[in-house]
Amino acid sequence: MMGCGCYLMENDVFMAFSTYAAIVILKMMLMAPMTAYYRLTRGAFANDEDVSRKPAEERKKLLRAHPDVERVRRCHQNDLENIIPFVVIGLLYALSGPELSTALLHFRLFTGSRIFHTIAYVGALPQPSRGLSWMLGMLVTFSMAYRVLSKKHILYLVLNINS
Amino acid sequence: MMGCGCYLMENDVFMAFSTYAAIVILKMMLMAPMTAYYRLTRGAFANDEDVSRKPAEERKKLLRAHPDVERVRRCHQNDLENIIPFVVIGLLYALSGPELSTALLHFRLFTGSRIFHTIAYVGALPQPSRGLSWMLGMLVTFSMAYRVLSKKHILYLVLNINS
Amino acid sequence: MMGCGCYLMENDVFMAFSTYAAIVILKMMLMAPMTAYYRLTRGAFANDEDVSRKPAEERKKLLRAHPDVERVRRCHQNDLENIIPFVVIGLLYALSGPELSTALLHFRLFTGSRIFHTIAYVGALPQPSRGLSWMLGMLVTFSMAYRVLSKKHILYLVLNINS
Repeated sequence: MMGCGCYLMENDVFMAFSTYAAIVILKMMLMAPMTAYYRLTRGAFANDEDVSRKPAEERKKLLRAHPDVERVRRCHQNDLENIIPFVVIGLLYALSGPELSTALLHFRLFTGSRIFHTIAYVGALPQPSRGLSWMLGMLVTFSMAYRVLSKKHILYLVLNINS
Repeated sequence: MMGCGCYLMENDVFMAFSTYAAIVILKMMLMAPMTAYYRLTRGAFANDEDVSRKPAEERKKLLRAHPDVERVRRCHQNDLENIIPFVVIGLLYALSGPELSTALLHFRLFTGSRIFHTIAYVGALPQPSRGLSWMLGMLVTFSMAYRVLSKKHILYLVLNINS
Repeated sequence: MMGCGCYLMENDVFMAFSTYAAIVILKMMLMAPMTAYYRLTRGAFANDEDVSRKPAEERKKLLRAHPDVERVRRCHQNDLENIIPFVVIGLLYALSGPELSTALLHFRLFTGSRIFHTIAYVGALPQPSRGLSWMLGMLVTFSMAYRVLSKKHILYLVLNINS
């Protein structure tokens, strides 16, 4: 009975990780259509073939960098630099058998901080809103990495067949 | 007997994931030597120490951006933005116990779309070839993320010792 | 008894992977505070809101690219392009049941090569120091990918409950 409880608890942590990892990865992926939207509305493209249907005299002008496009791209880059480490460290952390409530606190704080970070970055909110949300996300990942590295943790893996 | 079948089926999905994940990651990594090749042949470098053996009067000219180099780098960046989400979501998807045939369809469509995307990008093929291959890859990842998020899936993990 | 030995051996490989994956991901994450440090000391920012507390006449001048900042950013980008593939391929490799000593060799060579790469990049050491450390890291990842792709490997997963 005790064993079953363990399975279920670990399962819950891994399920929670799956959910939050999928959410932050999807959030990151949405930066690509957002970049496309700003490229189209601001008329700022990066490749010759992207403007080949425009009149010849306009083409040169459309191959340029626009501040709004660059802002979204910097936000996307910041996501790559922070969300992927979270997913990698979070996977190892989830396999180290943390308490469900502690794990959920980590996952939710990170997810919230990154959603706010995007709003602060794309909306150009006054600092230190963006800086603080970036730092909070980093601290969550550092906290999980500390657990992965510091204790000789036991790797729990979930085995749930037909249940 | 039923149980054995389950193990094997799940094993197959995870094996398939391993293979296609390794292929797309290797494809992404090959963009780095390709960038190096274009930097050398086009004479366009980013760091002082990379041109220190050239004659002093040439050095300044070689520290520049070349359109061909920038094109390969944008393609590499697009890979980072799309292939890594595929690998993360694909791992969670593979552990959610999908049908092997459905999983293979996802993995193969994604792999094919990204190989074509690279050809379209580096070869500067007319649009919408690059745009459509990028979109197909995204849709595959979204489809897997939908399964990970939508159903209270059971995480299957493969345990195959001495077999 | 044999079975227990197998569990333990595989556990060791996965534990080793967790440790080295966490180390290289943390190393990569430290590039962000290092970028922030160079932005502050060199006075080179990317966003209007980052310089809004400075005197109005200085603001324009602070929104610029500085060679030292760009160098750290290129190093960070190179980490993204190399460390994340290592983590993905390394995870699949660790699950393929390699010898612990072989696995440790791979993980340690990669970790050492990337730490040296950062020193060579940020310190602008003469080439080919940076080029060789980059190549060594790539070769390690290719070697692991070869194993993942070449043999019909058995996926070992660790199951350690209450131990």
